[in-house]
Amino acid sequence: MIKKLLIANRGEIAVRIIRAAREMGVETVAVYSEADKEALHVQIADEAYCIGPKTSKDSYLNFTNIISVAKLTGCEAIHPGYGFLAENADFAELCRDCNITFVGPSPEAISKMGTKDVARETMREAGVPIVPGSKGIVKDIDDAIKLANEMDYPVIIKATAGGGGKGIRVARTEQELIKGINITQQEAMTAFGNPGVYIEKYIEDFRHVEIQVMADNYGNVIHLGERDCSIQRRLQKLLEETPSPALDGEMRATMGEAAVKAAKAVDYSGAGTVEFIYDHVNRKFYFMEMNTRIQVEHPVTEMVTGVDLIKEMIRVASGEKLSLKQEEVTFSGWSIECRINAENPEKNFMPSPGKIDMYLPPGGFGVRVESAAYPGYSIPPYYDSMIAKLITYGATREEAIQRMRRALSEFVIEGIHTTIPFHLKLLEHETFVGGDFNTKFLEKYDVMNT
Amino acid sequence: MIKKLLIANRGEIAVRIIRAAREMGVETVAVYSEADKEALHVQIADEAYCIGPKTSKDSYLNFTNIISVAKLTGCEAIHPGYGFLAENADFAELCRDCNITFVGPSPEAISKMGTKDVARETMREAGVPIVPGSKGIVKDIDDAIKLANEMDYPVIIKATAGGGGKGIRVARTEQELIKGINITQQEAMTAFGNPGVYIEKYIEDFRHVEIQVMADNYGNVIHLGERDCSIQRRLQKLLEETPSPALDGEMRATMGEAAVKAAKAVDYSGAGTVEFIYDHVNRKFYFMEMNTRIQVEHPVTEMVTGVDLIKEMIRVASGEKLSLKQEEVTFSGWSIECRINAENPEKNFMPSPGKIDMYLPPGGFGVRVESAAYPGYSIPPYYDSMIAKLITYGATREEAIQRMRRALSEFVIEGIHTTIPFHLKLLEHETFVGGDFNTKFLEKYDVMNT
Repeated sequence: MIKKLLIANRGEIAVRIIRAAREMGVETVAVYSEADKEALHVQIADEAYCIGPKTSKDSYLNFTNIISVAKLTGCEAIHPGYGFLAENADFAELCRDCNITFVGPSPEAISKMGTKDVARETMREAGVPIVPGSKGIVKDIDDAIKLANEMDYPVIIKATAGGGGKGIRVARTEQELIKGINITQQEAMTAFGNPGVYIEKYIEDFRHVEIQVMADNYGNVIHLGERDCSIQRRLQKLLEETPSPALDGEMRATMGEAAVKAAKAVDYSGAGTVEFIYDHVNRKFYFMEMNTRIQVEHPVTEMVTGVDLIKEMIRVASGEKLSLKQEEVTFSGWSIECRINAENPEKNFMPSPGKIDMYLPPGGFGVRVESAAYPGYSIPPYYDSMIAKLITYGATREEAIQRMRRALSEFVIEGIHTTIPFHLKLLEHETFVGGDFNTKFLEKYDVMNT
Repeated sequence: MIKKLLIANRGEIAVRIIRAAREMGVETVAVYSEADKEALHVQIADEAYCIGPKTSKDSYLNFTNIISVAKLTGCEAIHPGYGFLAENADFAELCRDCNITFVGPSPEAISKMGTKDVARETMREAGVPIVPGSKGIVKDIDDAIKLANEMDYPVIIKATAGGGGKGIRVARTEQELIKGINITQQEAMTAFGNPGVYIEKYIEDFRHVEIQVMADNYGNVIHLGERDCSIQRRLQKLLEETPSPALDGEMRATMGEAAVKAAKAVDYSGAGTVEFIYDHVNRKFYFMEMNTRIQVEHPVTEMVTGVDLIKEMIRVASGEKLSLKQEEVTFSGWSIECRINAENPEKNFMPSPGKIDMYLPPGGFGVRVESAAYPGYSIPPYYDSMIAKLITYGATREEAIQRMRRALSEFVIEGIHTTIPFHLKLLEHETFVGGDFNTKFLEKYDVMNT
C-alpha cells in the first residue's frame, strides 16, 4: 500500500483526497501556490509545500516543482484530482519515468482518450456506439460536404484537440458547414496547435448520461452506474444526480457494459467516466468522451453504491485488485449534487471572489458537504469558482430533492455571492421536478426569473 | 398529515426535528427561553416564540405556555424531542385533552414504562426477560434480606421512581443491603416523592445494548436493530454504535423480538427504545427500561437502516401506518456516534460553557453532523452540555472508526473546551478498537492518560 501521497491539486478535491488518505493511514503532502497559503488543504495535510506563484502554469501545472516535492518528501505516489494535471499524459509519463505512481490510468490511455478522433475510432473498433460522423478528421471541405449530405443536417464540427465546450460549432446548412469548418480549424490551430476537425451528426434533444467505471491493473473493470448531468449552463454542469430519471435497469446495464468495453479498449486503470449522449426519445446512446480521472460529481455515485471511489483509486494504484465484483455493486436510493459556485446568478453568473465572512454548512441526515471553505477564508480569483459541493441522499428522488431544498436554505455563506439562490429556484422548477428534460433545460427556461 | 408542528425542545434535537419537518413540507414553530434568543433552532424554524425565562421549569417545562403557543399558532401537534417533556405522561395527557397530537406514545404507555416496578411486572407478564429480583417494590427489610439470599449477592437497590442513574445503590452484603434500602428510600422520597424501592440481582459484567422500535396506531410494531451504548461515564453515554460488536444475527433477532413484545405489551406508538442488560459472557439479556421517546443516539440506526426515524414519528403521529414491515428492514455497514460536549476532559469533564469563536464541522463521505452550534454562538450554562453529535458511517467497524478519527481531528471548535480530545484517545484505545468491553470500560481505563 502507498504510504505517502502527494496531492497535486487544491480546493475541495484536495481536501477530499487528503481525507480518504488519512482514513487509510496514508500520509499526505499538499502543494500550494502563493495565493493558497491560507487554503484548507494546506492546513489539514500532514505536510504542505509552496510550489510557485498564483498563476496555475507556474504552480499547479509546474511539473518540475511538483515532482521535486514528491521526491524530496518521499512520496511514492501523486494524486492529480481533476483539472490541472489530471489528464496530462506527459505528466503521467514523467511520473512513471521518475518512479512515482500516478494515481490514474497510463499515459497511453490518457492520450488515446484525450485525442477526440482517436478515441472515436478506438470506440468504433471496440463496438461502443458512436454518433454517425467522419472516420477520423475530415480531409477537406468536399469530404465534409459529402459526409454531411449522407448524415443529413444539422451536423456538429469538433476540433479533435478541443474539450470543455471549446472548438465546437453546429452547422445546419452547407453554407454554415463551409464557414464553420474554416473558423473551427483556425481557432483550433490557435488554441490547441492542432487544426484537425471532424464532423458528427448533431443530436439536439439528448440527456448527458455518464457511466462511472473502475478498473485495476489486472484487467478487471466494473461500472458503478450512471450519473445524469443534463443540467448544464454553457456546457458547465451545475447539478448532477443518480440514478438518471430517464434510465431503466435494462438501459443502465447496456450502457454500463458499453462503458466497461470502452475502458477495456484502452487497458484502463483507476477511476474513469464514460460520457454518453443519451437520446432518450429513441432510447439510443452514443459515446461522447471518456474522462480519464475522478470527476467533480463522483460523490453521488458513492452515496448510492456505498463505494468510496477515492479510496478505491488509492488501492488500485497500490497494486491491489478491485475490492468488489460487478455483481457485488448494488444501488439504493437517490442522490443529487449541487455545485455551489462563487458567482452571482442575478448577474449572469459573474464570478464573485472575496472573503467569506460567515460560513455554516448544513448538516443532518442524508446531507454531505465537500468544501474547502471556512469562516474568514478569502476565495482567490485565480482558480475555479466552485467553493462547495452539496450532496443529498434520499430513499427516493422526491426525498433527495426535498432534502436538497432544506439543506440549501440552511447553507450560510456571507460576504460573497453564490449560486445557492439559483439552485433553490431550479429545485422548485416543475420541469426539473418532473424529471423530463434535456441538456437545453437552462437555455429553454430562465430559472432565475420564473 | 400534520401541517404545523411545535417543537418543544432546544439544541440539536430541535434542529433535527425542524429539518425533518421541513423536508416533509410541515410548517414548524420553535419555542425558546430567554437564554436561547440567539439559538439556531429559533433562527431556522418558520416561527419562534419565547415561552419564559432561562430556567427550564419556567420555559421548556412550562405546560401552559407551550400549549398556548401551539393553540395560538394553529399547531396540530407537538414533538417533545428527548429530555424536558418527552416522558411526561401528564403533558402527553394535557395535549390529548387540548386536542393536540403528542408526537409519541399514549400517556398510559409513558406511565407504565416510567414507573420502574410496573414496567418490570408488565415485562414479566409479557414474557420479556427481566433480571431476577423482587416482584414489585420490597415490603420491608426482612422481605429484601430473604430475596437477596435467594438471588445471592451482589444485588442492586433501585427507587421505582428513579432514572438517569439516580436512586440506585449496589449492596454486596446483608449489612450494605439494610443500610442501602434505608438511604435509597429516604433519598427517593425527597427526590421523587415516592419511597418505593425494589431489588434485583446485580450483573456486573454487561454491555448496554438497546433495541430501537417503531410502532403505529394500528398495532404494527417493528424493530430496527440494536445500538451498543456500553461506553458510559457515570451512566452517561459518550459513544454509541451499531451493530454491537458483541451481537450476532441470531441474538439480534431474539432481542429484537423481545423488544417488539415489550412495545406491544403497552400498546406502544411511535419511536421507542428498549434498553437491555446484555450479559455477553453468558449470552443472556434482561430488560433494563424502555425509553418512550426518540433517543440522542438514534442517528446511528438511521445510518445503517436508511430509515428516517423522525419522519417516521411524524407520519405515525399523523395516523399513517408504518412505512415498512419487519422483513423490509435491512442493515448495512457500521455507524458510530460521538457526543461532543462542552466539557473539559482534562479537568474531570467540568462543564465549559461560553462563546464559540470559531466553528467548522467536518464533512465528506460518511460524515454526519447534528448540531445547533455556529461561529459566534454562546453556549448558555443552563442546559445540557452536549453541543454536537458527530456520526460516521463505514462499510466496516474499522472504516467507521478511521473515519471518526479523521472527522474528529478536523472538527474546529474554538473558545471553549470540548470532549473531542477524549474521543480521539478513546478511538485509539486498543480495547475499544478490539470491541471486547463492557459498561465499566471507562472506570477501568483512564483514557485521557493512556
